[in-house]
Amino acid sequence: MNETVLKPGVECVDIALGERSYQIRIGSGLIGTDSSFDDLAVGQSALIVSNETVAPLYLKRLEAALGTLHSRVQNVVLPDGEAHKHWATLNQIFDKLLERQCDRKTVLYALGGGVVGDMTGFAAACYMRGVPFVQVPTTLLAQVDSSVGGKTGINHPLGKNMIGAFYQPLRVICDLDTLSTLPARELSAGMAEVIKYGPIADMTFFEWIEANIGDLMARDAKALALAVKRSCEIKAWVVGQDERESGLRAILNFGHTFGHAIEAGMGYGSWLHGEAVGCGMVMAGRLSHSLGLIDQEFLRRLESLIGKAGLPVVAPVLDARDNVGRYMDLMHVDKKAEGGAIRFVVIDGPGRARLQAVPDDLVAEVITRSCATP
Amino acid sequence: MNETVLKPGVECVDIALGERSYQIRIGSGLIGTDSSFDDLAVGQSALIVSNETVAPLYLKRLEAALGTLHSRVQNVVLPDGEAHKHWATLNQIFDKLLERQCDRKTVLYALGGGVVGDMTGFAAACYMRGVPFVQVPTTLLAQVDSSVGGKTGINHPLGKNMIGAFYQPLRVICDLDTLSTLPARELSAGMAEVIKYGPIADMTFFEWIEANIGDLMARDAKALALAVKRSCEIKAWVVGQDERESGLRAILNFGHTFGHAIEAGMGYGSWLHGEAVGCGMVMAGRLSHSLGLIDQEFLRRLESLIGKAGLPVVAPVLDARDNVGRYMDLMHVDKKAEGGAIRFVVIDGPGRARLQAVPDDLVAEVITRSCATP
Repeated sequence: MNETVLKPGVECVDIALGERSYQIRIGSGLIGTDSSFDDLAVGQSALIVSNETVAPLYLKRLEAALGTLHSRVQNVVLPDGEAHKHWATLNQIFDKLLERQCDRKTVLYALGGGVVGDMTGFAAACYMRGVPFVQVPTTLLAQVDSSVGGKTGINHPLGKNMIGAFYQPLRVICDLDTLSTLPARELSAGMAEVIKYGPIADMTFFEWIEANIGDLMARDAKALALAVKRSCEIKAWVVGQDERESGLRAILNFGHTFGHAIEAGMGYGSWLHGEAVGCGMVMAGRLSHSLGLIDQEFLRRLESLIGKAGLPVVAPVLDARDNVGRYMDLMHVDKKAEGGAIRFVVIDGPGRARLQAVPDDLVAEVITRSCATP
Repeated sequence: MNETVLKPGVECVDIALGERSYQIRIGSGLIGTDSSFDDLAVGQSALIVSNETVAPLYLKRLEAALGTLHSRVQNVVLPDGEAHKHWATLNQIFDKLLERQCDRKTVLYALGGGVVGDMTGFAAACYMRGVPFVQVPTTLLAQVDSSVGGKTGINHPLGKNMIGAFYQPLRVICDLDTLSTLPARELSAGMAEVIKYGPIADMTFFEWIEANIGDLMARDAKALALAVKRSCEIKAWVVGQDERESGLRAILNFGHTFGHAIEAGMGYGSWLHGEAVGCGMVMAGRLSHSLGLIDQEFLRRLESLIGKAGLPVVAPVLDARDNVGRYMDLMHVDKKAEGGAIRFVVIDGPGRARLQAVPDDLVAEVITRSCATP
């Protein structure tokens, strides 16, 4: 990696993946600063991929910064939302690249949240069998989650994220200014993934979040910078040991098995992913307590913190006649269930997690205790 | 790689790509032999991808062999031909995988020619971000060309092979019996790529082909086995030094710049790819001679061999009013032209090739001399 002079106040996380290594830069005002991008080995042509919500806010700023680096900067603005994360939208990126005769040195910039990042990364992985791309995540969730791990892809009518690639960016630029325009619900949803890193890997970080949740929810740039940085570091540590998701990486799915059931059961888009994960962590925490792995006090702290982040702590009733049955059905079809008892990420004592098959009756009891009275 | 006991008469080429290494096996009757496949680490579920032409001939045989290895063997039969190498056909593979709830250990088997191989490989690269796949190429072209290199992908309305991935198979099984049912035109088309490896890399092989072209065209299994093996070895040697196509690998495109112009100018499907490459090698040979790189005698031998393989040696007129202009236009838009003079793969003395920018007037003269009189 080149020696670079960073602006004061810019935090860095180096993701070490051999020849696919890259840097995450975290700070204020990075999108409009050409030095955020200027030491990357890139071609003359750039394509910014954004969506209808984010483009009016930040596209011009990014275009201006890239104008000094690329002789041709173009853009494609996609419709916003998970519902558009499919082949037809992805193909809008390919259409633009081919109409403008973009070559294999063209750099793609993903300017937006997780959906834009997933689709742009997958387009970059496939266009001419691979062109470089840079992530510019504009939501807290994308900054702490999609920044690390190289997962890209689209949905298929029969399953989420079923078609995709592991593909690493050249760099990730987390401009904290973008979080100032983030709707409150999305800030909370992103905070769910920040909180997650505490119980599964780092109790010092968990305690820091507890002490600073007020500043974080008030969008204090310094607090957010630290939260994003530490989240990326922890995720990088986990992913670095398991790039292709064969084992340890599963612990990043703490709260996700219950969460996926809530998302699917309520209809996608009704609960945000982070909201479902927040509530799912409460449920997975209770499961860990039922298994005797964590004490009541830690469970109380976890629930309290999730609540203070503006996230739901009471699970929704998915079926008034057979709520537990509906949850169990949804979790059994989830891709992580491999025949027999469902495997959950449980907290194996504060700051440590593991995958464990849990008997159905214990799971059922947690669902009953966690749901609102119908 | 496990120690395996091969059937007598089975030739092997080991493709060394670190953890992505694999073996090409070449011989008769391999499709119906379960030991062709049985030492691969695979899941319970298999999906054979084939097309309407090949499936009636070989699908049952492959299903029978795989039945002893996988508890569930399914198939999807695609329409035949380059015209179907696009997203909608690729999605038939994803539909089948998801309808049958295939997990990430499912093995895809590509049973067919280059189009089936390219689409199956790309589907394998993308399904759940990567599942294993095995190539079972049933055309000579696919056996000597797509067996090595890991190129997979689909066409876009604005360009061939524009969307794809580099993705390596677990193994390649070249069953020479499948060549007995190959139409004569396709045998010749495949032979163009076999012949190609001589002038660019191995004159001993070139002389062997000259001496054995009669047996090869008569589909003698022993001769074909050697031709396929040596072709794969040479391609592996080239690709091994340049997996991602940044330099040396370009020499594999000998004859392809003229060839692509012929294919596009005649309308895709009118000339087979190998036919266009055969004729393109005559033209690129003449260009090399014009540049003083090879003598008249070697050029004569090259043209004679291409003719004996049943390939066209006279180029088609693409435009009766401005034939040279039409060829030049088509070659300038070809992706390998990067501004200014077109770069051609030229023979830098028999058995050695390199990329070289050639002045337009020299190219024009070769086109004029090579084409049929309008």
